[in-house]
Amino acid sequence: MPEIHAKRRSRLAAAVQQAGADAALITRLVNVRYLTGLASSNAAVLIRPAGEAMLATDSRYITAAEAIAPDVEIVMDRAVATSLARRAADGRTIRLGVEEHDVTLELAATISDAAEGVELVHLGRPVEQLRLVKDDDELALIGQACAISCRALEDLYAAGGFTGRTEKQIARDLENRMFAHGADGLAFDTIVASGPNSAIPHHRPTDRVVERGEFLKIDFGALYRGYHADCTRTSVVGAQPTAWQREIYELVASAQRAGRDALAPGVEYVAVDEAAREVIKAAGHGDHFGHGTGHGVGLEIHEAPSLGYAAEGKLVDRTPVTVEPGVYVPGRGGVRIEDTLVVRDGAEPELLTTTTKDLLVLDA
Amino acid sequence: MPEIHAKRRSRLAAAVQQAGADAALITRLVNVRYLTGLASSNAAVLIRPAGEAMLATDSRYITAAEAIAPDVEIVMDRAVATSLARRAADGRTIRLGVEEHDVTLELAATISDAAEGVELVHLGRPVEQLRLVKDDDELALIGQACAISCRALEDLYAAGGFTGRTEKQIARDLENRMFAHGADGLAFDTIVASGPNSAIPHHRPTDRVVERGEFLKIDFGALYRGYHADCTRTSVVGAQPTAWQREIYELVASAQRAGRDALAPGVEYVAVDEAAREVIKAAGHGDHFGHGTGHGVGLEIHEAPSLGYAAEGKLVDRTPVTVEPGVYVPGRGGVRIEDTLVVRDGAEPELLTTTTKDLLVLDA
Repeated sequence: MPEIHAKRRSRLAAAVQQAGADAALITRLVNVRYLTGLASSNAAVLIRPAGEAMLATDSRYITAAEAIAPDVEIVMDRAVATSLARRAADGRTIRLGVEEHDVTLELAATISDAAEGVELVHLGRPVEQLRLVKDDDELALIGQACAISCRALEDLYAAGGFTGRTEKQIARDLENRMFAHGADGLAFDTIVASGPNSAIPHHRPTDRVVERGEFLKIDFGALYRGYHADCTRTSVVGAQPTAWQREIYELVASAQRAGRDALAPGVEYVAVDEAAREVIKAAGHGDHFGHGTGHGVGLEIHEAPSLGYAAEGKLVDRTPVTVEPGVYVPGRGGVRIEDTLVVRDGAEPELLTTTTKDLLVLDA
Repeated sequence: MPEIHAKRRSRLAAAVQQAGADAALITRLVNVRYLTGLASSNAAVLIRPAGEAMLATDSRYITAAEAIAPDVEIVMDRAVATSLARRAADGRTIRLGVEEHDVTLELAATISDAAEGVELVHLGRPVEQLRLVKDDDELALIGQACAISCRALEDLYAAGGFTGRTEKQIARDLENRMFAHGADGLAFDTIVASGPNSAIPHHRPTDRVVERGEFLKIDFGALYRGYHADCTRTSVVGAQPTAWQREIYELVASAQRAGRDALAPGVEYVAVDEAAREVIKAAGHGDHFGHGTGHGVGLEIHEAPSLGYAAEGKLVDRTPVTVEPGVYVPGRGGVRIEDTLVVRDGAEPELLTTTTKDLLVLDA
């Protein structure tokens, strides 16, 4: 792994020069992890234009840092950012690029006080930009996170016994199955929404008891070695779907298919959203779909790109994204269907969440 | 609950005036929750010197905001901070106090661009300062979180069967028991550390199988209605403790008792740390206790005050803190004993984590 991190750092070095900076101070923890491999709650990395790096962290993470980044100079200091800024300047006057979306006013003031000669300049989001396109290791880990998630959901469905249990209990059951299949953690708080609660897009599981004939919407994912999975399936519990349930389900399934079909390198982000949204609008449910159609997935559960109605940019090869339209009819019920897929050059998008999207009737 | 939030906001209003600001823009989400009750991933609140408030959030949280803060003017806008800054200025020139430990350089620039006439001034941490002293509702919720945690641990201990299971499996078992007792979530990632892993202060559970005669260190807590519990117990699995295990355990137990005994209003934070640390140093294990003795607990798992060796300030009545010294002997094993307690005026500190601190031998 050190080679891949070194490669990422040298790619970043080009961005440092473009920003007119003498060095870049990367403080967003997820970006530090991307560039060095170190997962820590207190770390920063300094990147110079030629790609040399210096990694600062505190005593808790020194052993881990030395093991994962043997090719990087490591500094032990609790004040990670100021320590690196001082070393970057080393008494001279330098332009230090910082992640202005991460550095607080307080940290900026501390750096300016502690590191004489340092002028802070804005870098933009060069690491997030690099992170858009995944390397093979990353795609394998996201694939594994999705595989764990789907196996767990299929086990849950196969075990049946949904009526009489609460949303919370079903959520815990699914989470335990993800851990049993090797998840390191949860990609995010599991959503289990039954009956009228399925109309709430980001419902939190409650003590509501699931009843026969209801929609059961489950939005969940495993975390595996730092990488996230994101999947939603909606089913009906213990009874054949009503005409209304079938109608809403088929509408969302068509919209989701249209969104997936739109995924290809060079396609505008907003075009993916439009493809799914138009299907729902045409059926008169435009007001019942309030969120964006999808988002990037990787070291963060939500990362670039945003596939929303105001998104700017074009898809590129090797970018994992979700496609997750929904229709939510307040007080009545809702459906969301979500996959994680990888945009591929000259090929269909690669489906990572392989659990069936047929409308299942779950054993009561 | 609206009354308690209104009371908190009027206390904050005094701090706004002290900072020489015309209004305060509170953006730290946990502080927004403290002042309004709204738990959200996108919200901000504006407080004027007379205490009137304006709460901004996006469409996902509007219903929740209206329900929990009926006495507050609510603004629906995704750009929560800039929207409130613009409304605060309303064309005039104002000094707007911001939380400089939360506002990024990017957000500050966006506000300055979007809200003409707004000069940003630093507020400090007035909300964290208010949050040090808990009101009755908060103490009840922290107490409940601790009670759930202890019940779950006692169930786990009573069920036995520790050898042959992995650290991860034991962690999941304990977490499920917390959920069964009513936890809304986990206060933090559960630590289960066995044998030599118990020497790693912040170990993450692995697939290591627990064996007879080993230390089993468990650091865990429930989350209940936004409030956290924090508890650590160390036991021995399936065999009478060796002389060495007993020695280390009794040392840590004495240090922990000394730390608890030091808790009283008016006592310097650092004195609590010293009380525990001196016991460990005197036994020649000073180098084996690298972290601080404790921290505040509330809406965050780690919040003010810090009871570390470089902490500044004095304890006050109604502040919940942890006392958690440890001794970690690399390669061999370690012990930590941690309680959550409430500092009380004219009384012993109130113990919230009531599970026994005797050295237990767990059923193999």
